[in-house]
Amino acid sequence: MDVTLADVETAARRLGDAVLRTPFLHSQTLSQLTGAEIWLKFENLQFTGSFKERGALNKLLTLDGEARRRGVVTVSAGNHAQGVALHARGLGIPATILMPATTPTVKIRRTESFGAAVHLVGRDFDEASASVADFERQGLTFIHPFDDAEVIAGQGTIGLEMIAQGPALDAVIVSVGGGGMISGIATVFAALSPRTQIIGVESELYPSMARAIERHAGPIPAGTTIAEGIAVARPGVLTLGHVRRLVDDVAVVPEAVIEDAVALLLQIEKTLCEGAGAAGLAAVLADPARFRGQRLGLVLSGGNIDMRVLTAMLQRHLVRSGQLVRLRVPMLDNAGSLGPAASIIGEMGGNILEVTHDRIFDGASARSANAVFTVELPDSERNALVIEALHRAGFTAALVGTLPGE
Amino acid sequence: MDVTLADVETAARRLGDAVLRTPFLHSQTLSQLTGAEIWLKFENLQFTGSFKERGALNKLLTLDGEARRRGVVTVSAGNHAQGVALHARGLGIPATILMPATTPTVKIRRTESFGAAVHLVGRDFDEASASVADFERQGLTFIHPFDDAEVIAGQGTIGLEMIAQGPALDAVIVSVGGGGMISGIATVFAALSPRTQIIGVESELYPSMARAIERHAGPIPAGTTIAEGIAVARPGVLTLGHVRRLVDDVAVVPEAVIEDAVALLLQIEKTLCEGAGAAGLAAVLADPARFRGQRLGLVLSGGNIDMRVLTAMLQRHLVRSGQLVRLRVPMLDNAGSLGPAASIIGEMGGNILEVTHDRIFDGASARSANAVFTVELPDSERNALVIEALHRAGFTAALVGTLPGE
Repeated sequence: MDVTLADVETAARRLGDAVLRTPFLHSQTLSQLTGAEIWLKFENLQFTGSFKERGALNKLLTLDGEARRRGVVTVSAGNHAQGVALHARGLGIPATILMPATTPTVKIRRTESFGAAVHLVGRDFDEASASVADFERQGLTFIHPFDDAEVIAGQGTIGLEMIAQGPALDAVIVSVGGGGMISGIATVFAALSPRTQIIGVESELYPSMARAIERHAGPIPAGTTIAEGIAVARPGVLTLGHVRRLVDDVAVVPEAVIEDAVALLLQIEKTLCEGAGAAGLAAVLADPARFRGQRLGLVLSGGNIDMRVLTAMLQRHLVRSGQLVRLRVPMLDNAGSLGPAASIIGEMGGNILEVTHDRIFDGASARSANAVFTVELPDSERNALVIEALHRAGFTAALVGTLPGE
Repeated sequence: MDVTLADVETAARRLGDAVLRTPFLHSQTLSQLTGAEIWLKFENLQFTGSFKERGALNKLLTLDGEARRRGVVTVSAGNHAQGVALHARGLGIPATILMPATTPTVKIRRTESFGAAVHLVGRDFDEASASVADFERQGLTFIHPFDDAEVIAGQGTIGLEMIAQGPALDAVIVSVGGGGMISGIATVFAALSPRTQIIGVESELYPSMARAIERHAGPIPAGTTIAEGIAVARPGVLTLGHVRRLVDDVAVVPEAVIEDAVALLLQIEKTLCEGAGAAGLAAVLADPARFRGQRLGLVLSGGNIDMRVLTAMLQRHLVRSGQLVRLRVPMLDNAGSLGPAASIIGEMGGNILEVTHDRIFDGASARSANAVFTVELPDSERNALVIEALHRAGFTAALVGTLPGE
């Protein structure tokens, strides 16, 4: 059964003000940077940090008294778990959340803090999912994270708000995991603003929807994506139908560009997005010519990112932007060799974070060594100047190491 | 001349919608965490990333035609420079910004992108300031960053908005650099909400206002603060008068707590603050008993933080919260020693980032070595479990290193 505009409008009435009507704001600086007119929907500001509350609450509100008494079950270690837990508590519905045993304690605690019972089951998501049926047999209602008409209708309320809050859009760009959010939003735009293109985004490491609609060839590469919120191996049956019918394209973007998009949203908009939340901006950054001059609505779908992952991502962004570099400087293995090279780096504004020496495995002779400097630079152009200055002083310095996307 | 409520109301009319009326929002999670009712004023969302636009624009709007034609000069490498440059351009006023020669290119470029002429003068802020008089003699008007009645009145518009947008407040907590913002806000609350306490915050590394009003004894320690926006060596004459008359207290907070406040605002509110912007929350975190049950207004004054500094700060936050640890594990310097210890750390959920070996300087004998593991842990409680597991396997592991504030 396809979701209709009326279903989404009903969901919006049901949700009322129990979820946040998040801001939808124009970004002047990102518009200048990309050449498109960028509007941002701040779903990362929802109480649990993502849009998932909308679909979860809409589904919960459709349950009858008996189903509410028996309770609900879902499987998720992330945003959907928190959305279900928070709003089940609000409605007095017992919630059981299945998570893999490897789930970090902080995520378990956060979900438990909303009053849900967390069960650790199996070693991964698929093993945890296999246990859902046990709980359904006990009478609990399964709240599917995406492949459910009421969940899709709930997520679609984002689209209603974008139409009410913003200007007419040439395109809406939405990250795709299982496809619930894009199915709901596309339903709204197809009815109310059919000239707006609907474009999905996936990470190149999880292009499962793009493959399902034959926009992307080849196997799904193994690997971990920073956009774990959209790392779904198989789209839903219901969502795939909606996407086939209503979505114009699903773009596939490199991981490095998603990381850069997270960093730009933080630096420019002062807002924290998880990888999936920044994927829409990544699609524009990856292909600015495609979107030049268009008025775009991007959904910042969530902001729940581990601080350790964020730190690693920002460091990689600094490396790609040339503000964190590693220089190999061959020198004589003598008293007095290191000081002059280190002084030149310092005089050129480089802050030396670390020096290591390759003597045994990479020295040109028993009397020479490679000093490897890890250096912070105040801007992207400085590394060429540092290398030049070292060359002028007789050091044959060279950059070491690159990251994908450099 | 003291600034009056009427001056601030005039400033608000002058500014109109040329600066953002930023949101003033309740934070449920920070309120739970601190035991106070926390309201946040998001000045970090101003176009240039800080409140400084308000005072700069108000001052610019008071200049007559002749002064506007001649232009303005200021000295700042930070938020005030951007505020002056942006709004001078908007009014067609030539702006000259003096910065020390050591200023990072990215800050120079950003200010130049708003149409200002940047002059690099001297080696530090004092040397750059010394050149202001040369430009004044040429007819340019100096826009002081804080010690100016029109600048103070402009910053005071933050207070008018807080009163209009929020509930009655028991206290307002405002970071203090030169004292312009707190002088303006205190002027408003003294007139419209005299029962609201006005509390300033400074870093323990720059308690210059707290010393000036004799709330803090001893010399100002030398050192660098991450709250560079409030690292002002001498408060202004005009601002000191306002603070003496209108401000209830100036709290002095440790650097480590400012760093934690930045991390919490990012994790919980998904919003990026510079150190000065997070200082208000730091004051509450540093002394929760003092504020328990009170309704507090905190000004998130700015969000311009270097990504390298942010990365370092988040890593230190992870160390203090026990999610990034260093373990020294003595072992025999033999084949087969490292694997079992590394396996135990991995089985307990620790992600090993780095292993180094102390053989020469710190080994108990020529046949032993210390392996030093740098490990990421999924939560704060895990390090005790990892050490216990290593002990059970016969390794006498111990934590290495602490940071101030742990």
